[in-house]
Amino acid sequence: MNSFVIKGDVCYSENKKHIKSVKDGYLVCINGISRGVFASLPEQYEGLPIHDYSGKIVIPGLVDLHIHAPQYAFRGMAMDLELIDWLNNYAFPEEAKYADTDYADKAYGIFAKAMQNSATTHAVIFATRHIEATEILMDKMEQTGIVSYVGKINMDRHAIPELQETGALDSAFDTFKWINGIAHKYKRTFPILTPRFIPSCSDELMNELLEIQKTYDLPVQSHLSENKSEIEWVKSLCPEAKHYSDAYARWGLFGGRVKTVMAHCVYSCDREVEDMRQNGVFVAHCPESNVNLSSGIAPVRRYVDLGLKVGLGSDIAAGCGESMLKAATEAVKASKMYWRLIDNDCKPLTFDEAFYLATVGGGDFFGKVGSFDDGYSFSAVVLDDGSAPTTLALSPRDRLERAAYLNLDSCGITAKYVLGQKIKRV
Amino acid sequence: MNSFVIKGDVCYSENKKHIKSVKDGYLVCINGISRGVFASLPEQYEGLPIHDYSGKIVIPGLVDLHIHAPQYAFRGMAMDLELIDWLNNYAFPEEAKYADTDYADKAYGIFAKAMQNSATTHAVIFATRHIEATEILMDKMEQTGIVSYVGKINMDRHAIPELQETGALDSAFDTFKWINGIAHKYKRTFPILTPRFIPSCSDELMNELLEIQKTYDLPVQSHLSENKSEIEWVKSLCPEAKHYSDAYARWGLFGGRVKTVMAHCVYSCDREVEDMRQNGVFVAHCPESNVNLSSGIAPVRRYVDLGLKVGLGSDIAAGCGESMLKAATEAVKASKMYWRLIDNDCKPLTFDEAFYLATVGGGDFFGKVGSFDDGYSFSAVVLDDGSAPTTLALSPRDRLERAAYLNLDSCGITAKYVLGQKIKRV
Repeated sequence: MNSFVIKGDVCYSENKKHIKSVKDGYLVCINGISRGVFASLPEQYEGLPIHDYSGKIVIPGLVDLHIHAPQYAFRGMAMDLELIDWLNNYAFPEEAKYADTDYADKAYGIFAKAMQNSATTHAVIFATRHIEATEILMDKMEQTGIVSYVGKINMDRHAIPELQETGALDSAFDTFKWINGIAHKYKRTFPILTPRFIPSCSDELMNELLEIQKTYDLPVQSHLSENKSEIEWVKSLCPEAKHYSDAYARWGLFGGRVKTVMAHCVYSCDREVEDMRQNGVFVAHCPESNVNLSSGIAPVRRYVDLGLKVGLGSDIAAGCGESMLKAATEAVKASKMYWRLIDNDCKPLTFDEAFYLATVGGGDFFGKVGSFDDGYSFSAVVLDDGSAPTTLALSPRDRLERAAYLNLDSCGITAKYVLGQKIKRV
Repeated sequence: MNSFVIKGDVCYSENKKHIKSVKDGYLVCINGISRGVFASLPEQYEGLPIHDYSGKIVIPGLVDLHIHAPQYAFRGMAMDLELIDWLNNYAFPEEAKYADTDYADKAYGIFAKAMQNSATTHAVIFATRHIEATEILMDKMEQTGIVSYVGKINMDRHAIPELQETGALDSAFDTFKWINGIAHKYKRTFPILTPRFIPSCSDELMNELLEIQKTYDLPVQSHLSENKSEIEWVKSLCPEAKHYSDAYARWGLFGGRVKTVMAHCVYSCDREVEDMRQNGVFVAHCPESNVNLSSGIAPVRRYVDLGLKVGLGSDIAAGCGESMLKAATEAVKASKMYWRLIDNDCKPLTFDEAFYLATVGGGDFFGKVGSFDDGYSFSAVVLDDGSAPTTLALSPRDRLERAAYLNLDSCGITAKYVLGQKIKRV
């Protein structure tokens, strides 16, 4: 019944600032729950089956707080434009294809396979506005074994005609239909309300979404303060909003009783940051995306020090790949440039801090996820760094940092466990 | 006699701004020289053996203008300090180990194997100050098939005691001994004069190096204007120098009749840039290193537009890995942040431009290298992007961009050719 012991070189965040490293450690899973990491196996766990990964690095499963599944097809390309033009020229035309369920089946098949083989165990995912395609994605995500929130997008204005929904009521109706259609269908795949971003959603639609949120007590995901032109646009669309996030908060869709994650927050003003903090809104920090679309760099050090809830997002396809280890290194790199070029008082993130964000930080959106401490949901990833030999004797923690910077997970991981179950490689 | 045809989806820079893409193209090598790429095989080349890589991406070999071989052991770690502290705490202690030839043999063995398996066909390499270890490195580089310049470092001041040379004359004497020891020994591995950087080299040593340069007509590699503290230090060490590069130019070791490559050039002043341009000094742009050590971002758009000679460097171990495709994407990303955060008139590099730098731009240091145009030395790399499926029908150029951003070369390349010879994977 999902009870076993993993042996290996175990690393996990013992707090926000420090990765604990246990060479030849024993990691205990009882009924899908972590019971901790031990230098020698406690007597009460003797007799449990041992999954022996001696010499390999064992870490908690990684959490992706922001990823666009339908954009997977053009990842790693077409990053020569800034946000709004990039949406209109690349993202929207690609997403429009998902009206075709055959295309969705094929494309989401590729996406789900990649996610299954990745080091990600938990993800918060944007689909498209199409309900059939979104259900196809959820079917496939369920099969991956990954725990995920998946959102059918709402967007009733300012898109290209073939993608835009035909009105607020149509968008709301489709959302009802989608949620009812998938009710009780999945064990690890959950719906999340997904107003694309303020420029895509009329007031009428936001009002409808609030009703839907209340009816089903759904969490919410969206985008916030990513790009300067976008922020100006929101200001002109919602002159009554005090700042960008207020355009969500006016409709009751910004934290508080509603579990909320907002991607980017590159240019959040002080009041917006304070609203995020007070309302417990999660920031999905997407450093690679922010560089690729020339958006800028989010002040993640500030968010962390203020005690905001912060995790990391790959933000495919503005981010290139699904590796959350890479996202952690990109977060460190971006924070160094923030320190050097923007604010000399804003110290860079350490790798230990970035790893915390990629595990516990984002995991918090799912509950007790992202750690091996006693009581956490058991998710784990086994990494093999044997392909990168060195003359140095390294601690597991240093090997983990190296594996992250060398993208060793992109060539395949050794094993992955979610909810105490081993996930098959496909 | 190194004459054959490669069939595949061929990409190469037809000029600084544009990658030419020939699907199912024929790339002709005659006696180690490229004779061009053709949509159908010209009659005169029929009968040559065909190396069929249909469906795979074929590009010119990549050129690394700046890499520290002895730092390979700690790549992907220990990037929490800025340049000077990083040298004293990580780089110098590691380099001191190369006094031990057994250690050098083992560590350089790992480095050379990685280089052989990489997409790099030409490299300009820093060794350490030790002549025995440097010869071991050169022996191993010769075996990789890669064409390289390798430099025994000169450093007679401001290092840690166990690494610093015992005086200018000792440093010069060792350099003579090293050059004479390897004379006529290699076919594709060449010595390059390597004053580490101005803070490491006394005036007396620089004067000796000029004599050695003249005696053997050696090219020169060094570092320039990487970090603000370093620049201030150079100013205090050489008050008579008009700017950093002038401290090299005073000793005749800055371009002109001396083929010279300088790494970084993050903070070069206008006069320094003009001196580089006039003297034909190569800039080895190392974007990842400059981010990892929080140095800053070099204005590479400006250098390219001014017509400077610019190539890319991995700068291991301040850069993480040996992938020059990654270096190209890091150059694009860094240039976007330069545009966004430093100078709005300095447009980002395109991927096409960065790829040019990684091939022809750096290749120019070696002669006619880095292109498939008629008359170029034949080097080629075959990439397989089959592990990254997509629903889109992509041009070879788009697949190349994607392969670069997805680090597909880090999981292995299909084939590599240097000087018209296929290189064995080890």
